[in-house]
Amino acid sequence: MNSQKSGTSVYKRADSAEQKKDRRLMILNAATEELDHLPSADDFTLDSLARRLGLSRGTIYLYFKNRDAIFAEILIDTVNKFLSEMARSFSLLPTPTTSRKMARAYCDVLKKDRELRHLPSLLKSLSKSSDKKAKRLEEEIESCRHLADVTMTRKLKGLQSGDGRLIMHFGWSLLLGFSEFMNSPTKTGISPDVLQQVEDGLTLIIDGLLARVK
Amino acid sequence: MNSQKSGTSVYKRADSAEQKKDRRLMILNAATEELDHLPSADDFTLDSLARRLGLSRGTIYLYFKNRDAIFAEILIDTVNKFLSEMARSFSLLPTPTTSRKMARAYCDVLKKDRELRHLPSLLKSLSKSSDKKAKRLEEEIESCRHLADVTMTRKLKGLQSGDGRLIMHFGWSLLLGFSEFMNSPTKTGISPDVLQQVEDGLTLIIDGLLARVK
Repeated sequence: MNSQKSGTSVYKRADSAEQKKDRRLMILNAATEELDHLPSADDFTLDSLARRLGLSRGTIYLYFKNRDAIFAEILIDTVNKFLSEMARSFSLLPTPTTSRKMARAYCDVLKKDRELRHLPSLLKSLSKSSDKKAKRLEEEIESCRHLADVTMTRKLKGLQSGDGRLIMHFGWSLLLGFSEFMNSPTKTGISPDVLQQVEDGLTLIIDGLLARVK
Repeated sequence: MNSQKSGTSVYKRADSAEQKKDRRLMILNAATEELDHLPSADDFTLDSLARRLGLSRGTIYLYFKNRDAIFAEILIDTVNKFLSEMARSFSLLPTPTTSRKMARAYCDVLKKDRELRHLPSLLKSLSKSSDKKAKRLEEEIESCRHLADVTMTRKLKGLQSGDGRLIMHFGWSLLLGFSEFMNSPTKTGISPDVLQQVEDGLTLIIDGLLARVK
């Protein structure tokens, strides 16, 4: 907790483009920290973020239109991280691989990177938003799906173009559904139980796709 | 809106067992109505329920320990309704049937009965509760899974004992996941988009199960 009165800034005004970029990044980092300490993204408020930073809410508004704009930016970062981690994890898969190994590689990514634990909560918050940023985010997610599509169809004989996209689509829904069901705690990351369920469900979905092709 | 002051009861004291049963049912009906008017079960409060009924909160506590106890009761009703509707819907399926038809029959149940629209929201609320009632609910859900298991394995050659249980398990997770993603409105029932996604996902999962057996 910051002992200062809310609204009192300890920082000098950010004037140069460089300073503004730093300030922006500082806000995003503090928001990620703030999320670490909350049970869900729904509990996030700009007031407590401002307190954490020792900035006024007004200053935050200079950089971000609203809470959703901050979430969208964090989620874009998270999705990008997921993207590169997934590319790495999938490149380690044998060719050809199995549905189980592919589903596990997907879940391993979610397990390894602590930062990805906010994914379900953020996805959920932003699905309720019609913010423009959220639209841009959809494009990022789309490129994530595209990469999955290219990698998965290459690694697993029998998958058709478009199947990797479906696997990502259902994977995220299973992740969100089981996270809600099983009340996965945020601080410790996505719970192993949730990840096991997602892995099992995804394996079946991939098997279903492979069966469809035959 | 009731114009009376909150806490002032218009009802006489319920003395006989019969009266108590009626009062209990009245509270449950009002709670279901209340849910109809809220975006999510999270927004439900005992205060607004008391206002709707013209009862005091204290009177409600005579019948239900807390909000979760009310939700559990409504959800048990809902699950029972789902159970009998599903039995009816599945009995109309041809024998043998296909994975797509089976997944559609499952989603048709959710589509037909307006009361079932609270299912995702209630499931979500109660998954966060450790209430004893919620434990009893798990048993109801388990019997729902059991019925699904018996019916599904009979209708679709190639499914093994236990597969119907898995289909229900993943079906509810997909329902919850996509409802969260797509922000399905409560008032008008579960959105057709969500149901289409659940149907597609479940079809693949059933195909995956069938492929596993071969």
